[in-house]
Amino acid sequence: MTTHEPLGPADYSRTPRFAGPPTFGLLPRLDEVEAARPGAPIDVKILGVPFDAGVSYRPGARFGPAHIRQSSKLLRPYNQATDVHPFSTQQIADCGDLGVNPFDIPAAICTVEEAADALRADGAKLLTLGGDHTLALPNLRSVHRTHGPVAVLHFDAHLDTWDTYMGAPYTHGTPFRRASEEGLLDLAHCMHVGIRGPLYGSEDLTDDAVLGFRILRSDDYQFRPLPDIVADIRRRLADRPVYLSIDIDVLDPAAAPGTGTPEAGGMTSRELLNSLRGLQGLDIVGAEIVEVAPAYDHAEITGLAAAQVGYEILSLWAAGRAGAQVPTGPVAEHLDGGRA
Amino acid sequence: MTTHEPLGPADYSRTPRFAGPPTFGLLPRLDEVEAARPGAPIDVKILGVPFDAGVSYRPGARFGPAHIRQSSKLLRPYNQATDVHPFSTQQIADCGDLGVNPFDIPAAICTVEEAADALRADGAKLLTLGGDHTLALPNLRSVHRTHGPVAVLHFDAHLDTWDTYMGAPYTHGTPFRRASEEGLLDLAHCMHVGIRGPLYGSEDLTDDAVLGFRILRSDDYQFRPLPDIVADIRRRLADRPVYLSIDIDVLDPAAAPGTGTPEAGGMTSRELLNSLRGLQGLDIVGAEIVEVAPAYDHAEITGLAAAQVGYEILSLWAAGRAGAQVPTGPVAEHLDGGRA
Amino acid sequence: MTTHEPLGPADYSRTPRFAGPPTFGLLPRLDEVEAARPGAPIDVKILGVPFDAGVSYRPGARFGPAHIRQSSKLLRPYNQATDVHPFSTQQIADCGDLGVNPFDIPAAICTVEEAADALRADGAKLLTLGGDHTLALPNLRSVHRTHGPVAVLHFDAHLDTWDTYMGAPYTHGTPFRRASEEGLLDLAHCMHVGIRGPLYGSEDLTDDAVLGFRILRSDDYQFRPLPDIVADIRRRLADRPVYLSIDIDVLDPAAAPGTGTPEAGGMTSRELLNSLRGLQGLDIVGAEIVEVAPAYDHAEITGLAAAQVGYEILSLWAAGRAGAQVPTGPVAEHLDGGRA
Amino acid sequence: MTTHEPLGPADYSRTPRFAGPPTFGLLPRLDEVEAARPGAPIDVKILGVPFDAGVSYRPGARFGPAHIRQSSKLLRPYNQATDVHPFSTQQIADCGDLGVNPFDIPAAICTVEEAADALRADGAKLLTLGGDHTLALPNLRSVHRTHGPVAVLHFDAHLDTWDTYMGAPYTHGTPFRRASEEGLLDLAHCMHVGIRGPLYGSEDLTDDAVLGFRILRSDDYQFRPLPDIVADIRRRLADRPVYLSIDIDVLDPAAAPGTGTPEAGGMTSRELLNSLRGLQGLDIVGAEIVEVAPAYDHAEITGLAAAQVGYEILSLWAAGRAGAQVPTGPVAEHLDGGRA
Amino acid sequence: MTTHEPLGPADYSRTPRFAGPPTFGLLPRLDEVEAARPGAPIDVKILGVPFDAGVSYRPGARFGPAHIRQSSKLLRPYNQATDVHPFSTQQIADCGDLGVNPFDIPAAICTVEEAADALRADGAKLLTLGGDHTLALPNLRSVHRTHGPVAVLHFDAHLDTWDTYMGAPYTHGTPFRRASEEGLLDLAHCMHVGIRGPLYGSEDLTDDAVLGFRILRSDDYQFRPLPDIVADIRRRLADRPVYLSIDIDVLDPAAAPGTGTPEAGGMTSRELLNSLRGLQGLDIVGAEIVEVAPAYDHAEITGLAAAQVGYEILSLWAAGRAGAQVPTGPVAEHLDGGRA
Amino acid sequence: MTTHEPLGPADYSRTPRFAGPPTFGLLPRLDEVEAARPGAPIDVKILGVPFDAGVSYRPGARFGPAHIRQSSKLLRPYNQATDVHPFSTQQIADCGDLGVNPFDIPAAICTVEEAADALRADGAKLLTLGGDHTLALPNLRSVHRTHGPVAVLHFDAHLDTWDTYMGAPYTHGTPFRRASEEGLLDLAHCMHVGIRGPLYGSEDLTDDAVLGFRILRSDDYQFRPLPDIVADIRRRLADRPVYLSIDIDVLDPAAAPGTGTPEAGGMTSRELLNSLRGLQGLDIVGAEIVEVAPAYDHAEITGLAAAQVGYEILSLWAAGRAGAQVPTGPVAEHLDGGRA
Repeated sequence: MTTHEPLGPADYSRTPRFAGPPTFGLLPRLDEVEAARPGAPIDVKILGVPFDAGVSYRPGARFGPAHIRQSSKLLRPYNQATDVHPFSTQQIADCGDLGVNPFDIPAAICTVEEAADALRADGAKLLTLGGDHTLALPNLRSVHRTHGPVAVLHFDAHLDTWDTYMGAPYTHGTPFRRASEEGLLDLAHCMHVGIRGPLYGSEDLTDDAVLGFRILRSDDYQFRPLPDIVADIRRRLADRPVYLSIDIDVLDPAAAPGTGTPEAGGMTSRELLNSLRGLQGLDIVGAEIVEVAPAYDHAEITGLAAAQVGYEILSLWAAGRAGAQVPTGPVAEHLDGGRA
Repeated sequence: MTTHEPLGPADYSRTPRFAGPPTFGLLPRLDEVEAARPGAPIDVKILGVPFDAGVSYRPGARFGPAHIRQSSKLLRPYNQATDVHPFSTQQIADCGDLGVNPFDIPAAICTVEEAADALRADGAKLLTLGGDHTLALPNLRSVHRTHGPVAVLHFDAHLDTWDTYMGAPYTHGTPFRRASEEGLLDLAHCMHVGIRGPLYGSEDLTDDAVLGFRILRSDDYQFRPLPDIVADIRRRLADRPVYLSIDIDVLDPAAAPGTGTPEAGGMTSRELLNSLRGLQGLDIVGAEIVEVAPAYDHAEITGLAAAQVGYEILSLWAAGRAGAQVPTGPVAEHLDGGRA
Repeated sequence: MTTHEPLGPADYSRTPRFAGPPTFGLLPRLDEVEAARPGAPIDVKILGVPFDAGVSYRPGARFGPAHIRQSSKLLRPYNQATDVHPFSTQQIADCGDLGVNPFDIPAAICTVEEAADALRADGAKLLTLGGDHTLALPNLRSVHRTHGPVAVLHFDAHLDTWDTYMGAPYTHGTPFRRASEEGLLDLAHCMHVGIRGPLYGSEDLTDDAVLGFRILRSDDYQFRPLPDIVADIRRRLADRPVYLSIDIDVLDPAAAPGTGTPEAGGMTSRELLNSLRGLQGLDIVGAEIVEVAPAYDHAEITGLAAAQVGYEILSLWAAGRAGAQVPTGPVAEHLDGGRA
Repeated sequence: MTTHEPLGPADYSRTPRFAGPPTFGLLPRLDEVEAARPGAPIDVKILGVPFDAGVSYRPGARFGPAHIRQSSKLLRPYNQATDVHPFSTQQIADCGDLGVNPFDIPAAICTVEEAADALRADGAKLLTLGGDHTLALPNLRSVHRTHGPVAVLHFDAHLDTWDTYMGAPYTHGTPFRRASEEGLLDLAHCMHVGIRGPLYGSEDLTDDAVLGFRILRSDDYQFRPLPDIVADIRRRLADRPVYLSIDIDVLDPAAAPGTGTPEAGGMTSRELLNSLRGLQGLDIVGAEIVEVAPAYDHAEITGLAAAQVGYEILSLWAAGRAGAQVPTGPVAEHLDGGRA
Repeated sequence: MTTHEPLGPADYSRTPRFAGPPTFGLLPRLDEVEAARPGAPIDVKILGVPFDAGVSYRPGARFGPAHIRQSSKLLRPYNQATDVHPFSTQQIADCGDLGVNPFDIPAAICTVEEAADALRADGAKLLTLGGDHTLALPNLRSVHRTHGPVAVLHFDAHLDTWDTYMGAPYTHGTPFRRASEEGLLDLAHCMHVGIRGPLYGSEDLTDDAVLGFRILRSDDYQFRPLPDIVADIRRRLADRPVYLSIDIDVLDPAAAPGTGTPEAGGMTSRELLNSLRGLQGLDIVGAEIVEVAPAYDHAEITGLAAAQVGYEILSLWAAGRAGAQVPTGPVAEHLDGGRA
Repeated sequence: MTTHEPLGPADYSRTPRFAGPPTFGLLPRLDEVEAARPGAPIDVKILGVPFDAGVSYRPGARFGPAHIRQSSKLLRPYNQATDVHPFSTQQIADCGDLGVNPFDIPAAICTVEEAADALRADGAKLLTLGGDHTLALPNLRSVHRTHGPVAVLHFDAHLDTWDTYMGAPYTHGTPFRRASEEGLLDLAHCMHVGIRGPLYGSEDLTDDAVLGFRILRSDDYQFRPLPDIVADIRRRLADRPVYLSIDIDVLDPAAAPGTGTPEAGGMTSRELLNSLRGLQGLDIVGAEIVEVAPAYDHAEITGLAAAQVGYEILSLWAAGRAGAQVPTGPVAEHLDGGRA
């Protein structure tokens, strides 16, 4: 926890939210934080990565970071669901967008990896706003360098452990196979949540298991109590360092139309948010929110969900700083009930 | 109940619904009712209040009343869920839109208050179609004049008990604080339902409790059976006169994109409708549906939900006229099961 | 089951899905199948019927077949929910669109009936992509000719057993009354699922029962476990030949905005898909997906749901060919639990 | 000219326009006029005809009248381009929408014809808001009954003199052939303006000429001064009774996306409005604005153009009452220059 | 002209434009300029004013500044039409958005006036991105303080010299009347361009003339060569200090749907841009672009036009610094031809 | 000219256009033509190339071919503007979409080049529907192989002769520089039409001239008569083999919102169509329509323009087969007038 009061979001009492700065949650830019608190540690850095050359269907996630930020203007500093103050418990800085090459996927991966290393060098946790899921690979390389093999907790409609698309090994559908092959994953503790939709074949599932994953389907949320599902997740992740990767298409197209490979039968945003709230106490070493494609969004439905997801991640980190080992706040009562 | 057959909606067998009159549910205008049934009482009056100067984020609710009416054209006279005939059990009249000043919030509040008093002078119940939530204050002043302090049942993502925005005391985020301060509320019986999203601080909640409210969150619908929630609501409201205030943003952005301050993680329209159906037997003395902003709607998703909410409110009043003390119709079986 | 390997969808490893053929699921056209496997049986035929002259409110379903096909490009060959391979277990052919007269409803009905007879003459099962619900009548006439009175399983917000609209007997709101009157229905085994919204009067319900239907409401999905609902459906249909008619407006407007007579309070796509998955083992002799109106859709939300519904129907047929008597795959565990 | 002051639009100083009545230009309803000025003549009646069963491509014009009215709320009482006061020089009444059968084109034509006769019985001029172009036939039958063969001035991308579609003689593409065959047209004085796009064959043009029409193309506006074009129109119409039929698809898709059979290369709204302003002094005996399909409109682009077209027609009639023989106001200077 | 090389936009060779900073034209923020060139003069400041409480019809211009900036990302440094380098000839800084009170119009006007004074104190020219047209009044007060009465060149569909709306003197329809009353205008040299649409009465025009304006209508662009119009504008403005106020609704709804009070029959963006290019050599002391309402925009049509308008204004200032007295570049040849 | 009657589009008298095949203009597929007329020459082949990996800003042109085809359903067989029958004068075949690799630009270029060679091997002219402008390079390589250096007539807002983007030499902004470097262009006869918008620097223009181009700007259409512009184009192209490359962003954003790098101030579709009609008699050896990005289109505004552009190209080829040396039909009169 920082020793000084963190530099927080713009003052709502003086500036209407729509007039606030174009940062996530109206939070300060990196240069503002550095100027205001020279030498002080920065706990969380938020980085936009406008990149979508790895998309196999509807492109447009290159406009995702700006869209998520625009949709984050209504975020306020107190998380009533978990009784956490994500903006004042820790110092957060918005690092703006990373310029990555839209015409050269390997170069883009390299740029992201270097940026992640640089931003994480001072111990800050990194929240990446994508951009497409190709970004998971360089992000995992960077966290692996610090933490060793990590337990990936992956919310997505899709496995993203396919081998290649049209011969291309680095795309938004393959990052976790590459990561597993590179030894970045803790094979006993990775998990997909929200999986659904047709696959290429049943071998997709058997391959996936070998690569280190267990699966909770979107249908589990239909048939099982959410607290049970959360308990399963916590058991799988155990006390490992966790990398949290959230593809917004884990939500139903009704709740997230603005994405590239939507699948019917998905989760509600309420299910996703409460699942995330159940992760308090886990050692989340990095996180990303990917695949928001604004050209397909309407009235910011998708952007709002992504922004709130980001808010819950920041809240998890804030709760961790405050020492929470288990869920807190009103949601905890329900989750505990389910786990008992 | 009226002694003559009420003047009902346009004749569907002769006029396609899309060719019907631009009133709520194709129901008659106030002047048509007065001409057809001179001197007869009017049970329910519907008033549009196209006003949105109190909105803090996405404006546009000034076009809400026309949009809700357009989306109400598919309503038919028999409520199969509660076995009620809302259009023939009572005389309903659509009073059109009230002209309120978009440049002067206090003047607008005054205009609404006077109109509510005038329309309610003959004992009619008033259903207001907003417009933004600022309207709750003049509406509550009017019902208070007749009924004394009322139990507000407030469906919303937000508390709306904040003090000021940018120094302004009368906005869409402050009506219930003003109302509580003015003594309009029965402090032991008010309730919010559907609350979620970040707050300014934990004092928002403590203030809110002092102002007279208890809270059921959107997350309660995730974790608890709906009948239990309905039972909680009924207990809180007891046998008090109830003012029903429904901000359409209580619904998830997927179900109500057309609103000004959307919050992820919201209720489905089915949850909202069945919650309302559970209110039969309560003494609802007035109601409002607010914050429908058509510029952000798509294919009338939001308008359709708002129109159906209006229909359920009219059905509650019709059931009351028919003497219902508890829920009726197919939905009752499920709700009873939950309450037992 | 066919004796040769069926001609399957376009090769995904060589052609990006967005470059694939404009057929359902990238599957082959009828002429391609006939050329590749001359004389071999075709198990399933898919026919588009771009017709919407029977629509009473928002028209546009004439553009439905092309929209569903466009939204079906992401379908892949393995159904992980039911462990079925719908594209390789059976030979499917896309028969394109039928040219029906938009200005003459009786002529259109006749054209559809003749086409259904012709396409089904070789024993193929027919999946019709509408178009509006008027199509149910000629489809039922055709299946009746082969199978006698059938048990209609009808997913819809509306009963569609009204008598006439504006004097017209053949519209999208009347097919099942006509079918019942013509003796096409097995009066002891028909069922509506997903019903909601206002009716004209309580006699709509009593009439409907006489015409052969039982009703499960959208509200049942709110209050009851889905496996129980599926068990009810299976009991009602028993071992009768079943005609499956799915009006996409059975979904909530949030999940299916692109339709003509939307009703708030509807089902999620996940509820619909899992209900369909529970139908394995039933003798489904024909199926239709109707009322997709693209002008009101956004980002293919509705189209994606309709395409996935089509995929589940194809999977049911594939499972039947493989001898499944009850649900299979991961979903089966949940459904069995519910039925026990 | 009426002897009393006409009952005009809602008082803008007391009611914001968005709160005004749902009539064209906020003008009074027919019943309001009749109550306020009993027995006094009504100069112009506006009738909505929500009908689109005659549409061959994108349907939806059934929602056109309501859309045009919504888009007419910004109209004000003084036409600065022609120095005319259309709302105070004459008594205008909005007659609402006509209920016509969407399932039976001949019945619909009959209903429109009877309504036109009835509304015109007192000598009022009728402005019809469509609805599709099928309406031209019953409208022409009605004016023919009073005025004999009329000179049709037809703004459209299409000739609408085709014979049948799919065997149907009464559709939105055939009204003027039927009208010509029925002797309703003055064969020496009819004219199309704005024609463009591919035809079925060159015989379409030769047939069209025989049926009584001359053609000015959209391309003429590219290559010739507008005053010259206006002069050509005036010469062709001479001093005949003129029926003015405006299909909004005469505008380019950029200026009128909300229509059913759009054609690239069309007119700007400025070209259309100034062409209409050049018609002062002609004996326009009736008029219609058709083919506005709101589901394809955006931000009322199309509705606004249609509303302004209606305003110019009302201004032409007002100018006629005031005795204008030639264009007046600022536009006149330019038009005169062109004609000299 | 500055003595050092100005700090220009982000380096396009390293950062894709969609990854660039959220400033106008990817130009530097004020704090970046001040840090990079301490003490050096700033030639042009760009300020967003997200305010729309003065809007009489469709609100939403509060989101205008962010939208214009997003639509300005494709701007590049060389203006080929006028052979000007607007980004390197002068130092430009984006000052972000001003927080103004959405609930108190007089307070908002005061805030804008103070901000304009402060930003202009060092001699910088101010380009304001609205926000609604209410802003013109405080902007004019500020420039008047420095320059005395100015010649307003006002591109708009509307006069904006009305007296009050609903009793409110300070709205988006009244700024120029207030400005004239306050003596801020040079009564012999003000001009409206692009006027069209219905007025309240002919006295609107006579009042307007008294207040100091001459009028060029949108129709002038239909009938007269653009160079003649430009020559008229230059004559009217003579050598006075000019304040340039551009309401984006001067464009046709097809070219600018995203605005609050659209009027059919407007200008093309090409007409507007070439008119602005003709202003080289005038002494433009300040400028504003107002009434961009993104909720009604589509695919940034309106935003792109507004961004390019801003670019032409910056180019005018750059040309002035370079000493241009008359139009330069390719456009000059055409404009000269017209004036000869 | 072919010796047999060409196989034409679907029979409109039997099939409504919306039920027609998903080919350009409802024309036959390549395999249908080959089956119907074995061994007979095919005059024109249409190929979709769904590729957008070369896009520098808004992606999505990968969905362009399907969108253009959907928007081409209203095309009819007789071009009234030029008195040409494009569908019966020549045999046209739609070859569907080419599967190109979205992750590997060089591979994609290679695939397109090979496909162009193969399709053109029998002497057919090729009309490519993009996809992004990267396609121009392989298309030019293919035509160069047959025709030697060609005169490129390039309609676009942008020069597309930049060198690299982010180091990438093969993108949608660089094809004509690469083509010029490779010797594919006839340096004395290439021309851009419709250029506008900011450039990187004046050297863009000097480079461009060296690479072989002359420029007509969008502004030329503002200031000069269209026939003069057409005459300039014809003079520049002289009697060289011409490759016609049309980027849909040559149109104004109002007329073509659905594209990736829109620029305000563009051409109308009428200007573009009439410019194309003026090209009769030129030796056009190949053509492409690129950069249609449907996610940004509305109501097919962009698709309709692109489809009509394709129709005019087919008409030019048909007129050439019929021996036309100069423009024919009604448009010719205007163009001649301008050239005289």
